[in-house]
Parts: sequence; C-alpha cells; structure tokens
Amino acid sequence: MFDKKNVHKYSERYGLKEETAFLAQEEKVTLFLNNAEIISLLCSPANIDELALGFLTAEGFICTNNDYFEVDIREKGNTVFVYADQIKDVEKIKLRATLTSGCGQGTTFSEQEGADILSGASPNFSIQKVLSDIKLFQTESLIEGRTGGVHSAGLAIDGELVIRKDVGRHNAVDKIWGYCLLNNKKPYSAALYLTGRISSEIIYKALKMQIPFIISMSGATSRAMELAQDFGITLLGYVRGRNAVIYSHSERIKS
Amino acid sequence: MFDKKNVHKYSERYGLKEETAFLAQEEKVTLFLNNAEIISLLCSPANIDELALGFLTAEGFICTNNDYFEVDIREKGNTVFVYADQIKDVEKIKLRATLTSGCGQGTTFSEQEGADILSGASPNFSIQKVLSDIKLFQTESLIEGRTGGVHSAGLAIDGELVIRKDVGRHNAVDKIWGYCLLNNKKPYSAALYLTGRISSEIIYKALKMQIPFIISMSGATSRAMELAQDFGITLLGYVRGRNAVIYSHSERIKS
Repeated sequence: MFDKKNVHKYSERYGLKEETAFLAQEEKVTLFLNNAEIISLLCSPANIDELALGFLTAEGFICTNNDYFEVDIREKGNTVFVYADQIKDVEKIKLRATLTSGCGQGTTFSEQEGADILSGASPNFSIQKVLSDIKLFQTESLIEGRTGGVHSAGLAIDGELVIRKDVGRHNAVDKIWGYCLLNNKKPYSAALYLTGRISSEIIYKALKMQIPFIISMSGATSRAMELAQDFGITLLGYVRGRNAVIYSHSERIKS
Repeated sequence: MFDKKNVHKYSERYGLKEETAFLAQEEKVTLFLNNAEIISLLCSPANIDELALGFLTAEGFICTNNDYFEVDIREKGNTVFVYADQIKDVEKIKLRATLTSGCGQGTTFSEQEGADILSGASPNFSIQKVLSDIKLFQTESLIEGRTGGVHSAGLAIDGELVIRKDVGRHNAVDKIWGYCLLNNKKPYSAALYLTGRISSEIIYKALKMQIPFIISMSGATSRAMELAQDFGITLLGYVRGRNAVIYSHSERIKS
C-alpha cells in the first residue's frame, strides 16, 4: 500500500536534508463488466476484487437485490474482469453522470433520488461501543498518518471490525461493500466507520447498503445531516477520544 | 458557506447535550455550456462562476490556449450557464470518463496523457516565503477546522494570496483556475497552496495551469511524486509550522 521514496526534509534546525519517506501507492485500475469496459479508477492496489464489485453495485451496474446472484471476478494486473448474471443497461448508466463533491469531483452514475428510506431493524448502539470501536479503528488506520494519503473505512459486523484502505474516500467504502457481497454479509444492523468527512454521497451509499450507523472521525456537511435525518440513519462525527457529535437519530444511541 | 444546526454532543463529563454546530454547506450546481447540459457538481455555493469556468476548462470542454477567448457566465439559482466561443466536442468528451481517486471517485474527462512538460520559466522560491504563506493560508482556512468539511486552495500570485474554499478538493482548485481566467492572471511562476493531500490528478491540473509550485499541508501519493518529478513541478507536502517535505525539484527551493 505504500512506496519508499527519497525526499528532502526541511527543518529550521537542520535545513534541507535527504531522507526516506513512505508514500501511499496510487494506481489506475480498469474495470470490465461482462467484457464491456466500464471505467478506470485511481486507487490503492489492494482488495481490488472487492473494489470492482462494490463500485459496480454502488453505481447500479450490477443488481444484487435478489438473494441469489452469481458473480465471477478475475484480476489480470491492473485490470479486473467482473462477470455477473444480473446487470443493467451499461450505456444508459454511463450517460447519466453526476459529479459529486467527494473530496473532489466524484461521479455517481446511480439515481440517488430513487433510494429507499432505511426500513430495516432499528438497533441500539451504546456510545461506549462506538468510542471503543473508533479507538481500534484509529489504531488500525495509522497508515493514514504515516503517509497522509490514505482513507480508511471500517465495518463493525458480527463482532468483528473489517477495515479497508484506499487513497480514494469512496473506494474504501466500495471495498467494504464488495467485502459484504463476496462474504454474504448483511450490514443491516452494522456500523460504518470512516476517517474522512461525510458528504451527501456517502449517505446515499450507506442507504443503499442499508447501514443504519455512520461514524466518522471528521465532520459532516449540512446536506449529509439533512439526508441522514430524512433517511433514518444515525450519523456521528468528530468521534475522537471520549467525545462525539450526533447529527441525527440520537434515539438509537445509548449513553 | 456554512449552516447553523442543532446537534447532540456527547462528552464523558456531561453525557448527551444539545448544542449548535456549524456545518459546511453542500449544494448541487448544474453547468450548461452553450445551452448543452454538461454535469451536476456537488459543491460549496460560493464563487460558482469561477467553478463553472475552471471546471469546464480543466476538463477540456473550453479551449483557452489562445490569448483571446470570449466567455459569458450567467447564474440562475443553482444553475450556471456558460457561453464560450471556443468549445470542443461535448459528447465525445463526456464519453471519455476516467474516475479518479480524488478523495473518492472524481471524473476527469480530459486526456491527461496529452499534457505538456512544464516549459515556463523556472523561478526560485524561498522556504521562508513558503512557510510564511502557509501560515497565512492556514489562518484563512480556519473554517475547515470549524466545520471539518471544507478544503482550501490558495494561489500566491502578484504579491497576493487568493483563497477559494469548497467541500470538494478539486472544486477549490477549479475555482482558482476560474479566478485566473476571469481576471487574466497567468500563474506561470505562482505557487498553489492546498489543505488536502496530493494525488495524481492534482498534478495534472496544476500542469495544465502551468503552475510550477504545489505546496500542501498534507502528503502526496507516490504517483503524484513521480509525475511532479517528470513534469518539472516542485512539490512540497506536510508544510506546517517550520517544517516541510520536498518531493521533487528541490533545486528551485532556496533555504
């Protein structure tokens, strides 16, 4: 996930000095769906099978609404070939691009407005559990601090905390989704942990995955907060140390 | 740029407590070029004329290579209509989408590989100037810390530091580009300051603007470092306090 490089470091005391640094890897990965080229993503080259499946599902190319769907993934260098039995009209989806704020200009091909209100169970979550999970998540995400170029997403599910990393904030979440699909995990009472800030498209993504809790070390935009309120998602931000901000549906959080 | 909202705050000492918080605004803005709808961006609703012009130029829809180009921008709510005399084939560009890592999945419609090597003058920059500029930039970008949802981009040009903010990392840079185009500024010896980390597409963007210096408070990916080396861009990261990491072309930095 990172390369060793020689850089110069400047400090007031020593001036310019050559040193070794660890930089986050960033590679171009091209996705094919049933032999049609869909897109090239710039991403961290790890778990790219999960990234491919998660991305194609998040963006509406693959339909996984039925309990039964077949998928076959083959990697060849930086190209991932996904074969799925339930796909949608690729050209139609590609033309319906909406750039999103992401940390920049993300594309989301999916019709976000068509998303359902979170209809699953309404589990409770204790603030102590959130604070202990975030501590573990923060420790495991330390690479971010080391390279300054990697975001983490974590899923607290079935007593585990599954963590995926990527230079792309969305990619990390798509990897989590791909993990769920490949391992037949249903995140309907799970919590999604994030290092990065929460903008609207992360809310839509969690909604499609039917995840009721989003917990971030950073803050949320006002649009993200409004959507979380409307869609029945409990949204927490600035969760660090022994503190947290609860933006929506605090009734699910027990202190 | 931000909304006041009622949230709950949790602290170990006081438990859950209702408080007012400032959240970054995020809105959908739709761009039209010569009456054709191009895209919808999620962004901070400020300087959207600059965002529209900067985005359309960065993505290759508008050609500004000639010294003379005419542009007319009209805003109507969250829709921006741009009229330009030098435009490229819109449908062709739209079909050539590459998602980029951004902080997520950015789209860049432009053919990055066609970019030139930085051919302008090779100005020098003193590390003291960088450190004093970053201090000013950091102070002006304080809103980021306040809301956790806003990135800043700054341009040190003609003795000034022009700062633009956005929930999107790329949007902030596109606003800077739009500012240059609308004010006939040539950033050929300017420095671009950023709060966010540097991935490859920021290097391509600076290259197209012919900016020789990129200076960030965060780190760079290894791909960004390699591109900066190849294209003749001086790239600095982790510039905070009295320290800096110089990733490429340190010969232009005088201590």
